[in-house]
Amino acid sequence: MSYNKEMFELGNHGSAIRELYEYGRKRRQIVGDMNVYDFSIGNPSIESPKIVEETLVNLIKNKKSTVLHGYTSAVGDESTRISIKNQLNKTYNANVDHNKIYLTCGAAASLAITLNALYSTHDELIVFAPFFPEYRVYSLNSGYKFVIVDPSPDFKINYESLERSINKNTKVLIINSPNNPSGAVLKEEDIIKLATYLKKKEKEFNHPIYIISDEPYREIIYDDIKYPFITNYYDDSLVCYSFSKSLSLPGERIGYIVVSSNAKDSDEIFKAVAGAGRALGYVCAPSLFQYLIANVVEETSDISKYKENRDYLYNSLKELGYELIYPDGAFYLFMKALEPNAISFMERAKKHDLLLVPSDSFGVKGYVRIAYCVSLEMIKNSIKAFKELKEEYDNEK
Amino acid sequence: MSYNKEMFELGNHGSAIRELYEYGRKRRQIVGDMNVYDFSIGNPSIESPKIVEETLVNLIKNKKSTVLHGYTSAVGDESTRISIKNQLNKTYNANVDHNKIYLTCGAAASLAITLNALYSTHDELIVFAPFFPEYRVYSLNSGYKFVIVDPSPDFKINYESLERSINKNTKVLIINSPNNPSGAVLKEEDIIKLATYLKKKEKEFNHPIYIISDEPYREIIYDDIKYPFITNYYDDSLVCYSFSKSLSLPGERIGYIVVSSNAKDSDEIFKAVAGAGRALGYVCAPSLFQYLIANVVEETSDISKYKENRDYLYNSLKELGYELIYPDGAFYLFMKALEPNAISFMERAKKHDLLLVPSDSFGVKGYVRIAYCVSLEMIKNSIKAFKELKEEYDNEK
Repeated sequence: MSYNKEMFELGNHGSAIRELYEYGRKRRQIVGDMNVYDFSIGNPSIESPKIVEETLVNLIKNKKSTVLHGYTSAVGDESTRISIKNQLNKTYNANVDHNKIYLTCGAAASLAITLNALYSTHDELIVFAPFFPEYRVYSLNSGYKFVIVDPSPDFKINYESLERSINKNTKVLIINSPNNPSGAVLKEEDIIKLATYLKKKEKEFNHPIYIISDEPYREIIYDDIKYPFITNYYDDSLVCYSFSKSLSLPGERIGYIVVSSNAKDSDEIFKAVAGAGRALGYVCAPSLFQYLIANVVEETSDISKYKENRDYLYNSLKELGYELIYPDGAFYLFMKALEPNAISFMERAKKHDLLLVPSDSFGVKGYVRIAYCVSLEMIKNSIKAFKELKEEYDNEK
Repeated sequence: MSYNKEMFELGNHGSAIRELYEYGRKRRQIVGDMNVYDFSIGNPSIESPKIVEETLVNLIKNKKSTVLHGYTSAVGDESTRISIKNQLNKTYNANVDHNKIYLTCGAAASLAITLNALYSTHDELIVFAPFFPEYRVYSLNSGYKFVIVDPSPDFKINYESLERSINKNTKVLIINSPNNPSGAVLKEEDIIKLATYLKKKEKEFNHPIYIISDEPYREIIYDDIKYPFITNYYDDSLVCYSFSKSLSLPGERIGYIVVSSNAKDSDEIFKAVAGAGRALGYVCAPSLFQYLIANVVEETSDISKYKENRDYLYNSLKELGYELIYPDGAFYLFMKALEPNAISFMERAKKHDLLLVPSDSFGVKGYVRIAYCVSLEMIKNSIKAFKELKEEYDNEK
């Protein structure tokens, strides 16, 4: 074989989301930008805050280019790690050590590195449906058995299914709150319940079970919900973060990993994280954006606009009679398809130029994900199409 | 095991180069910047060309931030790929297709991705000593048997050793010209000889043998040597490139992979490259720097300064009686240690505040690498220390 078949398959069949997005791009060229209601992709529509532009220009004009664009240490620039630590400890009253922060090329890198760092032979990884499809890719590439816990009615944690899935080989669970694709948020009581359950399981199996909290949407949370920072509730935990969504910088690939200082073998895990980064070809996170983050770690884009979108879309679709999960965070709305097969529902929605991602690749059947990180104007224009789609199904009954 | 032991080892024992660099950083704080002759690391000392700064500021001020910092397609922005194609085809009269260019987070990512994309069970990878130590890391992580060809006297290609090393399981060879650590350059006649040899071997084994040309130092080449671009000479080839050295942007992590359009299974390999990028956690190369490259792909830093350094250092050390490999490119000088054990030579040089990397990690014994990407002033000041070191050894004879 002249190439790696598994890698070929991954490259040949892009994600369903990317494929729908590509369709939308072509369709817009035919019928015009405002006539395609493209809810397919989680690309932030809100501009980065002005201070991002100002700080970048300031750094480029005033910092010596050989330093600004030079290698940082592999774990990341120290001043950046200290800024992140201060922000986390201040915001969440957490106990993060900057020597346990590893800067990465975004959340995907954070996850791939963390999963490689933790893996030993026979390990199993648990995810909760619905889940971000790339978890499966990183899991298989690291070597884990990939175990899916069934969804619960509120799209949080189904303990019956978890109890059936967990066993002595379980090494890691990934939680993702606010959730992509459902928008569900694990609140403090949810995290306390999960932590209590897992501490019991750690005792039962007599080894640590790690939680990886994948939280790029951490700041996109509505209605004054308090975000429970995982290391405050569960020792054996790691945080995977990205500034993609909070600062609208998805293309720049900047994020981090935090290893809880209280985790079992915390020092060794941190070194394994650095080693996994090295093995996967990461040298350091992009240096200009590291220095940016040192200055703007407390800032976010104007998230109130996503709330406006959520409220308008949720209320309008509810009124039309659609069945929806009320999203507490992120910029996704999870909607029940009007037929059991979400893929054929997606195809019929497409005929109304509504681009919705079927839930199948998220490990759940019969739903679609609506990414409302788009302009409010587009959302308003799209309601007519949602209405026609609903009527079409109603008329068939 | 609560973490991955192999990854832990990689993280716990950083590269010898990084460790020496860290020593230098601490030593400078004690004796002052100008009193440590730190030749340990390949961090470009020449500023990026002014147009880099101007273009970055211009992009940040004038391009919509949601586009500038947004996701590009996974293979990279099309205009950037077209610029790279045009530059390669114009400079080398090559036949590169922009649909066979995949933008990466630098050369390390290019190599890790490419090796993963090509690997099948039982495959072997050949490297030529001296070689960049991280090749071993990426090789093992992909699964290859790592096979080292002995050095030849001119640090180019030892065909006797190659003939002993190559076999039916050989899938890939990595060439690295200009070479890190020796500075040796494979000239056109060298590449023709290698291509002829490998074509014969492909016939003999009846399957493709790929050359990966790792060429981040491609533009740092002296004395009007013509650079032979590999795809012009050998069909089954891939290029791994980075702008780290040519534009002095090592921290920004921007580079690319070219899959030769004439390679056996070229289309499948390109898809496997995209798949491997996905599996290793790469989403896209940093977007701002992609757009930068689209504008400045023909530029380089002022490389004449490295030539000045090379000439001064080579001539001075030659005069002192050191045995040296004359470097045609890159910014490294390979010098014979004054005793058989390069590590103990390195330790004695350290006492003169001369930081030289022993050749052992490059797969060769008895040499040190001198990275002369430093100020000419530092080089001039260091000569006294080199003189004292030489005299110390001479007096022991």
